[in-house]
Amino acid sequence: MPRSDYPFAFPFRVRYAETDAQGIVFYGNYLTYFDVAIYEYFRWLSYTITDHVSETGADFHVVRAVVDFHAPSRFDDDIEVFVRTVAIGRSSLTFELSIFAGDEPLPRVTGEVVWVNADQESHQSTPLPERLLALLMPQQPA
Amino acid sequence: MPRSDYPFAFPFRVRYAETDAQGIVFYGNYLTYFDVAIYEYFRWLSYTITDHVSETGADFHVVRAVVDFHAPSRFDDDIEVFVRTVAIGRSSLTFELSIFAGDEPLPRVTGEVVWVNADQESHQSTPLPERLLALLMPQQPA
Amino acid sequence: MPRSDYPFAFPFRVRYAETDAQGIVFYGNYLTYFDVAIYEYFRWLSYTITDHVSETGADFHVVRAVVDFHAPSRFDDDIEVFVRTVAIGRSSLTFELSIFAGDEPLPRVTGEVVWVNADQESHQSTPLPERLLALLMPQQPA
Amino acid sequence: MPRSDYPFAFPFRVRYAETDAQGIVFYGNYLTYFDVAIYEYFRWLSYTITDHVSETGADFHVVRAVVDFHAPSRFDDDIEVFVRTVAIGRSSLTFELSIFAGDEPLPRVTGEVVWVNADQESHQSTPLPERLLALLMPQQPA
Repeated sequence: MPRSDYPFAFPFRVRYAETDAQGIVFYGNYLTYFDVAIYEYFRWLSYTITDHVSETGADFHVVRAVVDFHAPSRFDDDIEVFVRTVAIGRSSLTFELSIFAGDEPLPRVTGEVVWVNADQESHQSTPLPERLLALLMPQQPA
Repeated sequence: MPRSDYPFAFPFRVRYAETDAQGIVFYGNYLTYFDVAIYEYFRWLSYTITDHVSETGADFHVVRAVVDFHAPSRFDDDIEVFVRTVAIGRSSLTFELSIFAGDEPLPRVTGEVVWVNADQESHQSTPLPERLLALLMPQQPA
Repeated sequence: MPRSDYPFAFPFRVRYAETDAQGIVFYGNYLTYFDVAIYEYFRWLSYTITDHVSETGADFHVVRAVVDFHAPSRFDDDIEVFVRTVAIGRSSLTFELSIFAGDEPLPRVTGEVVWVNADQESHQSTPLPERLLALLMPQQPA
Repeated sequence: MPRSDYPFAFPFRVRYAETDAQGIVFYGNYLTYFDVAIYEYFRWLSYTITDHVSETGADFHVVRAVVDFHAPSRFDDDIEVFVRTVAIGRSSLTFELSIFAGDEPLPRVTGEVVWVNADQESHQSTPLPERLLALLMPQQPA
């Protein structure tokens, strides 16, 4: 997906602690980048996850993460994690993510993260709040 | 997949540093567990990855990782990461992983990691060594 | 301090994720090794920290950590973290730690971690339990 | 030390992956914050560490790190790591660091990191370059 298909991106500069002995970002650390970028995407949507927890008694759980590695990133690289919602279920959200650097035409990393909204008492999945749906809907492809 | 479908497992005890503010293992850390378990699986196969690099001029790159989260793990939990090779390509290996705890019948986490063998000079994929194929073949399902 | 000055050690094998682009363990990760080793030292003492929290209403907080780096460790190195209690205050414990590998005469890393026992309601420091003192006292130098 | 004693600060927003089951930043992660802040301080000084390595054949090694924890930080907290050089030896640099949040008068964390400049062939300490000394000197207290 080109950058223009995403409504939001969040910048990262690769930390030394995130590299490994191959001199590149250790692959597990991309899930941390994805996680931060999704939280910042919710901030950009004006939907506060801590309020979600206190107001609805539910919290989001990650149920699936997929990462495809196309090209490595190195210490001090400036990269951007692009985020969009590609599927909205009764209680689940699927995010698609792409990491680009500079003006490179192709993403270095692509992936997907799936969240389920779970009631904190019953531990069962529970419908997404209307307000969140209203914020996400305008971003869906026609 | 039940435990009996896997030839190898490696134990982990969850570290405090690996938990997050939800009180459970932060999901990105499962890729570290997967990574360690695959290295130990190669040790168990008697195939030394550092020798592979020095003798063939190629190294393995992770090109894909998938993690499905079924149940959380907490600080001090004793878990085991089960590993098997489920696909062998010309230059690629696909590992399937499952994390079990105690005598629980169902895995807490399942996933897949794909490695490609890449020549360190040309950065192109290159065939897997015969010796590695000979070690992996007996483990493949009939 | 030689190994023989320590009552307890816990083994680690360096994970790839713990190395950095210099090819050595990223220095912040030694605090994770220290943390795990101190927990295992308490297990060896038969003092369960989760019971401490539930029975006394207090928990341990790290208030200081010092790490001195003498020699690096690399991926797959087998190292041992030696632990002993070097000072016992009214509410604080000071642990000394040394990391050795193989039969090397000198430690690769040395350090110190200070814990304070803090009441979880008042957030004030609170005396160490008698039972813990009784377990630690025999280990103190004469 | 008050904020005004530092020439430089770098902002961080606490990531979920950096918290632990106590709901606060795991203490080892402060060394990552310190590390990033020192690199950014060098960037601000216009001294490029990768050039240092390629031009002088030496690299900086961390030989000591001290962290004192005064108050915790939590997920999504905006914090700033303040950095200054407090001692310049023949081959060593000592950095003092303080972490402040918002307009809190006292730092949440303070610490020290010591670097030694080491020749990459001999592995011996080697004098700091004149150009680096010239950049650091004006910042030293009179």
